[in-house]
Amino acid sequence: MTVNLRTPPALAPAPVRPAPVRPALIAGLSAPKGFGDATLRDRRVDAIELLGGIPDPDVLPTSALAEATARVLGRPGVPALQYSRTEGISPLREWIAEREGVAVERVIITNGGFHGLSLAVQAVVERGGLVAVDNPIFPLFLRGLELSAADILPIRVGSAGLDVGELADRLRDGARPAALYTVPDFHNPTQGTLPAVARAELVRLAEQYGFIILADNPYRELWFSGGPESVDAFNSSEHVIHINTFTKTLGPGLRLGWIVVPDRLAKDIVALRSRQDSHSSTLVQAVVGELLTSDPGVFDATLGRARALYLNRARTLVAALERQAPGAFQSVLPGGGLFLWPRLSDDRIDADRLAADSSAEGVEYQRGSFFPSGPGTGAARHLRLAFGHVSEPQLEEAAARLGRALRKQVK
Amino acid sequence: MTVNLRTPPALAPAPVRPAPVRPALIAGLSAPKGFGDATLRDRRVDAIELLGGIPDPDVLPTSALAEATARVLGRPGVPALQYSRTEGISPLREWIAEREGVAVERVIITNGGFHGLSLAVQAVVERGGLVAVDNPIFPLFLRGLELSAADILPIRVGSAGLDVGELADRLRDGARPAALYTVPDFHNPTQGTLPAVARAELVRLAEQYGFIILADNPYRELWFSGGPESVDAFNSSEHVIHINTFTKTLGPGLRLGWIVVPDRLAKDIVALRSRQDSHSSTLVQAVVGELLTSDPGVFDATLGRARALYLNRARTLVAALERQAPGAFQSVLPGGGLFLWPRLSDDRIDADRLAADSSAEGVEYQRGSFFPSGPGTGAARHLRLAFGHVSEPQLEEAAARLGRALRKQVK
Repeated sequence: MTVNLRTPPALAPAPVRPAPVRPALIAGLSAPKGFGDATLRDRRVDAIELLGGIPDPDVLPTSALAEATARVLGRPGVPALQYSRTEGISPLREWIAEREGVAVERVIITNGGFHGLSLAVQAVVERGGLVAVDNPIFPLFLRGLELSAADILPIRVGSAGLDVGELADRLRDGARPAALYTVPDFHNPTQGTLPAVARAELVRLAEQYGFIILADNPYRELWFSGGPESVDAFNSSEHVIHINTFTKTLGPGLRLGWIVVPDRLAKDIVALRSRQDSHSSTLVQAVVGELLTSDPGVFDATLGRARALYLNRARTLVAALERQAPGAFQSVLPGGGLFLWPRLSDDRIDADRLAADSSAEGVEYQRGSFFPSGPGTGAARHLRLAFGHVSEPQLEEAAARLGRALRKQVK
Repeated sequence: MTVNLRTPPALAPAPVRPAPVRPALIAGLSAPKGFGDATLRDRRVDAIELLGGIPDPDVLPTSALAEATARVLGRPGVPALQYSRTEGISPLREWIAEREGVAVERVIITNGGFHGLSLAVQAVVERGGLVAVDNPIFPLFLRGLELSAADILPIRVGSAGLDVGELADRLRDGARPAALYTVPDFHNPTQGTLPAVARAELVRLAEQYGFIILADNPYRELWFSGGPESVDAFNSSEHVIHINTFTKTLGPGLRLGWIVVPDRLAKDIVALRSRQDSHSSTLVQAVVGELLTSDPGVFDATLGRARALYLNRARTLVAALERQAPGAFQSVLPGGGLFLWPRLSDDRIDADRLAADSSAEGVEYQRGSFFPSGPGTGAARHLRLAFGHVSEPQLEEAAARLGRALRKQVK
């Protein structure tokens, strides 16, 4: 038998291959569950939702934004519709740098606070690394952390924010996190604010043990009296990424925020970000920059209205809970922000049943059990009630519904 | 000697640790060089820049965008300033789905075309995987690919787009890419469009060998006559992510685009995207959705003006090059898009010296040597001239300057 070398044998059709394997990055992302998954429960059409830290549209500068948009779209050559630098446009970065008290080169514009967290995590946490985190914690941060498949080291959060002493103990015991995540001002969910002395000690630990503090500060500007705690300790350290956003002050739908980063990290973060989505919307940056710089008083005037509204709503909710369910909730009037974190006084109350009964009565909130990052918090005995976007009469009604739900368990 | 167990020995202060090591993700990102790095050269203040695929502001619907903004910011409750779904807002997704001829569930809104590419790469390419790519290629795609530290398999691009035959040969030889990247319509930089029969064959190969086609289509709508090539072969396959954007049609500064994904990938991509920046600006989505749906003819009317303008500029540039440097450039009038890719006829011309001399004369362009992803293209003998945003008199002047630069090498 001879083989004709000029005519190759007919190729059998290759079998259809299965689709490619999912990359480890994707396979490591958890399925939605609990906090933030709005579709988990059927709701009453008249449900009052105390679910998210949502600013009230009445205190957003809506018409000023529309006017600023018309102005930037009317400029010759319309630069607001063109490409811009990854770091962000200069007028906006300069305004932020002045407010933060840092050099403009350290300010990078983001698509909101969560985007800043995501960039920070990817920039400083090796895959499979260790990150110390608030306990209880803003749960979506743990989802963002899945991008780095990181392990967590939960650190207790009390009424004065992160327990820096516990962190120091864990570091002395040998823990070596790459980063620490905390909300220093008006903590989500526990309301507390980290005092100045603890900020300084936290920064000292970061510098001693070589980790990066991810200071997540979306509620900072929403203080109710006396001004916010200083962030100088954060902004003057090479070991802090300070994350902020216009989400709670000018509107979540803008998707506009910023991070203050150490000089040595700026180039890495810009390199990463330029490979993801190039830069934040030039239009949104130009509109907000125009709003803030064309009328120097507009931001503080907007914040003044917001602070007064949210303080009034916090007071209304605390009082309504006490009136509708006397003694049932241990509430502390928050010093700022958009959340109340009352504790159930009566240990006989089943908190999950209360959430279900409340839903049936027509009030939705985040149950405390969504928030622990580790054991020992007692968070499951709390409720997180978001009051920012809910009118005072609706807050009264929500408290009445909560009271009815409670009375299904105790008379 | 006794040891007092109650008093621990004084701890020596821990030494200051160095900053954490850069994650592999970050260490794998290249330093800026060549294409896209605007700061590499000093330019004349009167330089004519033919550098980027930039739409002309005169054919962007500027005032209609301002009017749409005023309307969406005037709505009760101002939903345009609030959070929205990761996939995007419904009116915009529905408009896109209808234009693409796909189910709305397959449309995911992005922050522009590059963001779509970035999400697609991360969703389907394992770190260190293999990706077949255009050769020559849109160079920024290779930077995005650094997110997955991928190896590349360059596939030749000719006057009719990707050489699907060469790809088939490489697959038969055993290459097993996870994905293939190509620009099917009005290729960047080589102008060509992949014919329908080659699209069908490419999809057949993807389905046979189990890779995902990343079809990057930013110039698709900017055809000059007869309409675009069909994308049905792409949109009907489970092995294609079709990437598009409003960047070249409504403005890069919006940062708004979309991807059409196979059903089975939608959830993964939403999970990834929700951990990066939550969702695209609700405001930008609402404004563009309002623009497109409130006046059903506005998009095609905008495109009609743009196509006529860009065709005229393409013709002007081709004619001006021939007039200013007869026979020096082999140019093909493009069928659409924003680029001319002329070849230097005279092999004695040093292309790098020409670029430097042109810069000295006051005309900037991307030299062809920035574009190969592998050997064998001859791209270094080409120039990429972007004409979209440059007026006809300026194109004439640019050609004159190029002619003067050429005559420094040949009389």
